[in-house]
Amino acid sequence: MRIDQRQPQELRPMKITRAFTKYAKGSVLIEVGETKVICTASVEEKVPPFLKGSGKGWVTAEYGMLPGSTHTRKNRDIAKLRLDGRSSEIQRLIGRSLRSIVNLEALGERTIWIDCDVIQADGGTRCASITGAFVALVDAVNALDREQRFAVYPLQGMVSAVSVGIRENTVLLDLCYEEDSTADVDMNVVMNDKGEFIELQGTGEERPFTAQELTSLLAVGEAGNRGILENLRELLGNDLERVGEACE
Amino acid sequence: MRIDQRQPQELRPMKITRAFTKYAKGSVLIEVGETKVICTASVEEKVPPFLKGSGKGWVTAEYGMLPGSTHTRKNRDIAKLRLDGRSSEIQRLIGRSLRSIVNLEALGERTIWIDCDVIQADGGTRCASITGAFVALVDAVNALDREQRFAVYPLQGMVSAVSVGIRENTVLLDLCYEEDSTADVDMNVVMNDKGEFIELQGTGEERPFTAQELTSLLAVGEAGNRGILENLRELLGNDLERVGEACE
Amino acid sequence: MRIDQRQPQELRPMKITRAFTKYAKGSVLIEVGETKVICTASVEEKVPPFLKGSGKGWVTAEYGMLPGSTHTRKNRDIAKLRLDGRSSEIQRLIGRSLRSIVNLEALGERTIWIDCDVIQADGGTRCASITGAFVALVDAVNALDREQRFAVYPLQGMVSAVSVGIRENTVLLDLCYEEDSTADVDMNVVMNDKGEFIELQGTGEERPFTAQELTSLLAVGEAGNRGILENLRELLGNDLERVGEACE
Amino acid sequence: MRIDQRQPQELRPMKITRAFTKYAKGSVLIEVGETKVICTASVEEKVPPFLKGSGKGWVTAEYGMLPGSTHTRKNRDIAKLRLDGRSSEIQRLIGRSLRSIVNLEALGERTIWIDCDVIQADGGTRCASITGAFVALVDAVNALDREQRFAVYPLQGMVSAVSVGIRENTVLLDLCYEEDSTADVDMNVVMNDKGEFIELQGTGEERPFTAQELTSLLAVGEAGNRGILENLRELLGNDLERVGEACE
Amino acid sequence: MRIDQRQPQELRPMKITRAFTKYAKGSVLIEVGETKVICTASVEEKVPPFLKGSGKGWVTAEYGMLPGSTHTRKNRDIAKLRLDGRSSEIQRLIGRSLRSIVNLEALGERTIWIDCDVIQADGGTRCASITGAFVALVDAVNALDREQRFAVYPLQGMVSAVSVGIRENTVLLDLCYEEDSTADVDMNVVMNDKGEFIELQGTGEERPFTAQELTSLLAVGEAGNRGILENLRELLGNDLERVGEACE
Amino acid sequence: MRIDQRQPQELRPMKITRAFTKYAKGSVLIEVGETKVICTASVEEKVPPFLKGSGKGWVTAEYGMLPGSTHTRKNRDIAKLRLDGRSSEIQRLIGRSLRSIVNLEALGERTIWIDCDVIQADGGTRCASITGAFVALVDAVNALDREQRFAVYPLQGMVSAVSVGIRENTVLLDLCYEEDSTADVDMNVVMNDKGEFIELQGTGEERPFTAQELTSLLAVGEAGNRGILENLRELLGNDLERVGEACE
Repeated sequence: MRIDQRQPQELRPMKITRAFTKYAKGSVLIEVGETKVICTASVEEKVPPFLKGSGKGWVTAEYGMLPGSTHTRKNRDIAKLRLDGRSSEIQRLIGRSLRSIVNLEALGERTIWIDCDVIQADGGTRCASITGAFVALVDAVNALDREQRFAVYPLQGMVSAVSVGIRENTVLLDLCYEEDSTADVDMNVVMNDKGEFIELQGTGEERPFTAQELTSLLAVGEAGNRGILENLRELLGNDLERVGEACE
Repeated sequence: MRIDQRQPQELRPMKITRAFTKYAKGSVLIEVGETKVICTASVEEKVPPFLKGSGKGWVTAEYGMLPGSTHTRKNRDIAKLRLDGRSSEIQRLIGRSLRSIVNLEALGERTIWIDCDVIQADGGTRCASITGAFVALVDAVNALDREQRFAVYPLQGMVSAVSVGIRENTVLLDLCYEEDSTADVDMNVVMNDKGEFIELQGTGEERPFTAQELTSLLAVGEAGNRGILENLRELLGNDLERVGEACE
Repeated sequence: MRIDQRQPQELRPMKITRAFTKYAKGSVLIEVGETKVICTASVEEKVPPFLKGSGKGWVTAEYGMLPGSTHTRKNRDIAKLRLDGRSSEIQRLIGRSLRSIVNLEALGERTIWIDCDVIQADGGTRCASITGAFVALVDAVNALDREQRFAVYPLQGMVSAVSVGIRENTVLLDLCYEEDSTADVDMNVVMNDKGEFIELQGTGEERPFTAQELTSLLAVGEAGNRGILENLRELLGNDLERVGEACE
Repeated sequence: MRIDQRQPQELRPMKITRAFTKYAKGSVLIEVGETKVICTASVEEKVPPFLKGSGKGWVTAEYGMLPGSTHTRKNRDIAKLRLDGRSSEIQRLIGRSLRSIVNLEALGERTIWIDCDVIQADGGTRCASITGAFVALVDAVNALDREQRFAVYPLQGMVSAVSVGIRENTVLLDLCYEEDSTADVDMNVVMNDKGEFIELQGTGEERPFTAQELTSLLAVGEAGNRGILENLRELLGNDLERVGEACE
Repeated sequence: MRIDQRQPQELRPMKITRAFTKYAKGSVLIEVGETKVICTASVEEKVPPFLKGSGKGWVTAEYGMLPGSTHTRKNRDIAKLRLDGRSSEIQRLIGRSLRSIVNLEALGERTIWIDCDVIQADGGTRCASITGAFVALVDAVNALDREQRFAVYPLQGMVSAVSVGIRENTVLLDLCYEEDSTADVDMNVVMNDKGEFIELQGTGEERPFTAQELTSLLAVGEAGNRGILENLRELLGNDLERVGEACE
Repeated sequence: MRIDQRQPQELRPMKITRAFTKYAKGSVLIEVGETKVICTASVEEKVPPFLKGSGKGWVTAEYGMLPGSTHTRKNRDIAKLRLDGRSSEIQRLIGRSLRSIVNLEALGERTIWIDCDVIQADGGTRCASITGAFVALVDAVNALDREQRFAVYPLQGMVSAVSVGIRENTVLLDLCYEEDSTADVDMNVVMNDKGEFIELQGTGEERPFTAQELTSLLAVGEAGNRGILENLRELLGNDLERVGEACE
């Protein structure tokens, strides 16, 4: 039995509030257990220099933690004049994960800015960010779609993420902070709705892992993502209608 | 009649959720109309260099806006490597306002960090921040007080803030964004529970104001703060019990 | 009697040297008692991005203190890689104050940069900066006007600023550093030549102030600004000829 | 056949020059095909604040690219005043990989700084950095060991890294730049000398990958690392004598 | 005949106002022709880390230009978040020049901060800074000396600086901006009161110079410095009494 | 006899490896004794703003030291968010030195970026950088020339640099670190192939130098540069064919 009474391979309760704020085209509060992240998707009608004139769009992500989101207050990046290294690593992961399901040509020369701001961190903030950002992205793209801005609908699939780890020789799904900080192995599994892998990041800083353990971790991560995607399908319903049509 | 159907001198509905997040000793979501700010009060058991060894504590504030909180996405300060000038001005105002009701000797050599992060900006964010931060401060100080950390209770009063302005020759209370951005005169009035002024910041960049107009603005601001303080008294109830005892 | 033998509501001697340096279109050394500030107004034939193509100009201010200007040497902003928070607050105040008397359409698509650099700080540097910058602005605008760059003369009035405060229960005008640092209440009053208020910034961090005290402070501030404006009229003489004509 | 005439699962030639420079305790030039990285390990007799007094040491890594190391000149980080996001991600990976084989208690309160500076980038710089940094680390630790600075020898194993990818439906080992930039899937596999995984970073930004593909990628990566470790054993010979004794 | 009617080897008029501001121990306004620099010498009772516990003091210099000091407004360093490269080069020159005449052991563990802020730049600002800073340094050291802070008087000589150049095949002394910007060769000569060289910085970016030309340049620079030192001796009179006694 | 057994006026062995890396048009590893610097010359087909539309090109230099290049590890500039002052001074020197032999009109509107990165510092890094950068520049310009990008060949001469100093009353040529750090006088002499001076930087921070000593220093520096240029002529052979033709 786990710290919070879950079975080893049980997801934490996930709650997603859409239209959480009113200005960004997509705005989501995602709560995964005690972890809470605000994910917004804002549209800017221009692209970074390297895409100017290419006809292609871009999806980029920024990740931050509010000072009060952690056990001891976290100083703001601007107070240190440098982006936290961990945030930098995470926001690159989020950006790549979301781009994997976007047809950038179909998006057209615009940028979708994904902002993931953690307001309470209890483990798994990067995975919650990816899942929440996917919902915000759907809402933003559908808003543009209703304005008939796309010839081809740009979303080609769903994406979600979950953490898995090994703690006291047990494979755990969706670790909370207390589990995460005492786990030997920690892995983030990002998958799409075809059961394929988008990103895998596994760290054995505390203890390396064997190929066999990896197999178990991936199986649990896959099951976890399957569960999350089911929830998302239920939540999004008709809003997923056009997703994937570009690949058909 | 105003944009949102209010009377000229009517406050917007205010909703305060305490214990909004779980790590900071005080954590408040304040909603004033459509403006939403997360205010946390975190305690650090040390003081800035200029107070080391003085026996006195410190209260300092930081203010930020999430990128998705405004009409068009606001770049993060860290992306520009500089603290927004407006944020700098506002966080100094919040810090001074809260320090005005704190007995820093009684607080002891510790710092209370106030963080005000705007998640949706619809006018009056600096005033909402001050009011919300006051509640977070009460909660944080009471948490320390329950741990018997104070010989003398350090809060000496209540503080709240509201904006007033002149628009189309009418004095308006508690302006929303649309009103604020078209007002001729804009003033922020910070007051305590004795009806005294803590901070006054009036700007006639668009049109100067006369002494007579100032008198009207202040009267409306005073009434507004009286109304807010009444709400706070109801909200905080017994938690205000020890406030002000240090001055008696 | 005050530290420097003045009456409570007596201004410090003010001395303004115009054409203090030769490159900026307006260049003023303003001395208010022992406070000395160099104020220059430089013209740049372009505007910030948000005004491009609008036909409107801009007036912006920067404020700094030389390292040797204060009791203990002040580190340069660049040594800390961040603009001092207090400087940030002050330069926004100066910018708004000067823009209040400028017809930005009449100015045309150009920027006037106001630079206020304190070489000796003995209280009231932000007020001295505003008053000095106004003179530099007049000189710069008149220089452009002599080159027939304006269809409509862009200055619509005069502006000046003075500090008032309460110390030992006496309302004092134009506080020097020693008074300022021991005052209970401190207020900066920016006014125009019609006796209207442009900016009011009052701080009761040490002790709040009542409505009645505010009335006294404003009356003294108004009288102080009246005195300063009289001095400016004498100093500027014919150079004020066209000021205000745009409003007639 | 590949761009450079290799078999799909053939490593590029690897050349390691030890004692490449003379000041750092460990200094290595690693050449993997056309990729060239200088890896140094410098010892500092203090630890970061979070470890002060803990008796434990630290291993941290920094990664950079010389401006001339890439096809088009890369601006220096200092010219942009921010650490490149990719560099940030990579140096965290290198640090975690090396710490996985270090007994930080045995290291004692000192920091080993790993610096990986790419002088020519032709794909796989992060993997070459890890492998090269391991050799530099061995040399630095052995230098300290010869000075009898350790009660327990702090290195507990070997570590190496190699990239694998899928390009035109073929699994490739150790991709050069041209292959890497046109690969669909890209994975970095960090392993120890027991055949266990230390870090796995797989990216399917261009195309997701299936569980089956993952299995192939990992098998190829494992074989690649086995080959590299064999080379390292030959290169290091007796210098590996004490490695791993702490775990026995 | 030169632009300003001087003979080729004639110095510009130099005017030095001591005690120009009141807080720094030494404060000088130096005017060399139309070039005007404020030089202050401030004392801090601590030394940089590399000298802690050494018993030795330090002299360091910072150099800046006010935005309005040049023909077109110069942006502040803080606006670009980086110290101007030229300023960096100049302040290192000033620091080395002044340290050359200071007995750092005799100074004791304190730092003298030299700040040179150009308020009007008309050529030769770095040389004017060195000469002006020397006077400020004398005043600061003598102020400390009157407080009997030194066992051994720390100033061991005088220092001054002047520019020389070649323009239209004529060697010119003490170039103004218009000459400087059109000169082929430009050299700054820093000397002490024994006629020895402290620093030489000659630049033939526009046109290289021969050994013979160098001889002429140095002769003219030497004569120029002799003239300046004579002026300084007259200006400083008795205040130079103890200078040099440490070397006797 | 010197530390490394050389005669006082003997150069250290110099070794230059051309085409050291493959992307930059010019890429050189220069070794002067134990000092090793990578110098690359990269071509960018645009110019800085101040030259846009002028038809002229630009040559600019950046200088850095790898963290492991010095006795004790040198922190990266980006870790301190500021360019090292010494680096700033040096890169300006390198830039001016190289521009002295370039016909910027003939270069056309392109920038040549010179990057000098020290991988091992044993004295004289700035001089080695200039000499190495000259070779890289020749290679880059010749590469462009082979592509027939120039109407007029833009290199007008050769440039080299060497340090001279006085230590224990002996004039030394080409000082290594141990000599440099204990020298009384230190001078860098940059010359062209006509025996003319390009830059002279002499520092008597430890002890001033007389006119007579200067004469000796310059003579030794001149001889040293003559020796280096001979080596360069041998090394470059036919690649120097077109150098200087523009001046004929």
